[in-house]
Amino acid sequence: MTLSPTGRTTITRHRERGSTDRADLFAVLRETLVCHVGLVRGGAPVVLPSIFAVDPEGPDEGGTLYLHGSVAAPWLRQAPGATLCATFTLVDGAVLARAAFSHSMNYRSAVVMGPGRLADDEAEKVHALDLIVDHVVPGRSATLRAHTRKELAATVVVAVPLAESSVKTRVGGPVDEPDDVAAGGWAGVVPLAVTAGTIEPDREGAVPDAVLRRVAHWGGVATAR
Amino acid sequence: MTLSPTGRTTITRHRERGSTDRADLFAVLRETLVCHVGLVRGGAPVVLPSIFAVDPEGPDEGGTLYLHGSVAAPWLRQAPGATLCATFTLVDGAVLARAAFSHSMNYRSAVVMGPGRLADDEAEKVHALDLIVDHVVPGRSATLRAHTRKELAATVVVAVPLAESSVKTRVGGPVDEPDDVAAGGWAGVVPLAVTAGTIEPDREGAVPDAVLRRVAHWGGVATAR
Repeated sequence: MTLSPTGRTTITRHRERGSTDRADLFAVLRETLVCHVGLVRGGAPVVLPSIFAVDPEGPDEGGTLYLHGSVAAPWLRQAPGATLCATFTLVDGAVLARAAFSHSMNYRSAVVMGPGRLADDEAEKVHALDLIVDHVVPGRSATLRAHTRKELAATVVVAVPLAESSVKTRVGGPVDEPDDVAAGGWAGVVPLAVTAGTIEPDREGAVPDAVLRRVAHWGGVATAR
Repeated sequence: MTLSPTGRTTITRHRERGSTDRADLFAVLRETLVCHVGLVRGGAPVVLPSIFAVDPEGPDEGGTLYLHGSVAAPWLRQAPGATLCATFTLVDGAVLARAAFSHSMNYRSAVVMGPGRLADDEAEKVHALDLIVDHVVPGRSATLRAHTRKELAATVVVAVPLAESSVKTRVGGPVDEPDDVAAGGWAGVVPLAVTAGTIEPDREGAVPDAVLRRVAHWGGVATAR
């Protein structure tokens, strides 16, 4: 299945950076830790950072994006039935050109738009919350005790279909005008990545394997302080 | 001057994590590389990642947030006069608790809401574009040739007042229920930060000092490949 952007998610600038491959969408979502969710409140845009999870086989068209939070959070109370826009951005580098105008960023980004759906079926809710824990540390949810009724009642899970989405990527070095290249100034890329530091344990004891694997994935040294 | 959030930017959840100190706002904005800008288009929210700059002494109430991009970008054509929401998020760590419910993130975040203003005075535009280059690599703009008329004509700069804003921060370890702590599972924090890799030069020659300083700031090794 390829992505089928609507007018709302069609890339208008630098179309050559766009992708319509569903695998690219999932790759960006899998690697992004925190997304930015937009909704409209009182006619104004509101954008909030949020942890999330993705279920490619979820019940919504194109798969499901899961968002969650407290029942007391106004944006989550508003989200079911509202149009949401979730944006996922991985900053891969600062592209430093000769001319200010030619400066750029290397990035992988995705935009998902769709209606929020309240996921209040208990099985789906538990599944979504486990996916959210595993999005941060894959494999961790299986090592934790079950959710309590009280915890489930205190939590809202909102699902968004992944069908209406777009992916945009920039890679590579600076692209300056020939005159600027000829003028001989320095240019280059500073690669950037999210990196783990040294684990700060809350108690003594062996760090779980899932955590060690995740720290290694984030390029950190998998030892505790 | 303290921040004076309106109803739109007042923190409703975990108010103890909020700050009304203007210095905290500028600290978050200074460190965040890419913000997420929301606007309303056709009644739906649109959220896009964007480079930006901040001028604490800018002409708008509370100082000025500058956004920029191509004159061909629909969101930038729409932004002047529209209400914008710009959100800035620094992910500082994954807080891995004993219970799924107690998991959290350490972060510093800020939300700015306000009307977009077209900054089309040439002096302000040049100032804003230089600030944007310097936001990515402080000191770099002074080392580059002047903007050309053609470049300025191809670029839109939009200013947003910083007056209506909020800051929210979480620090520290996991906070589990006493029963979960007593059960003896592992918990801890994985610190996370954006880190520079090895510089990828586009040509031979000494890497400019401003770039070396910025790479060092990002915790990278300030040498070129």
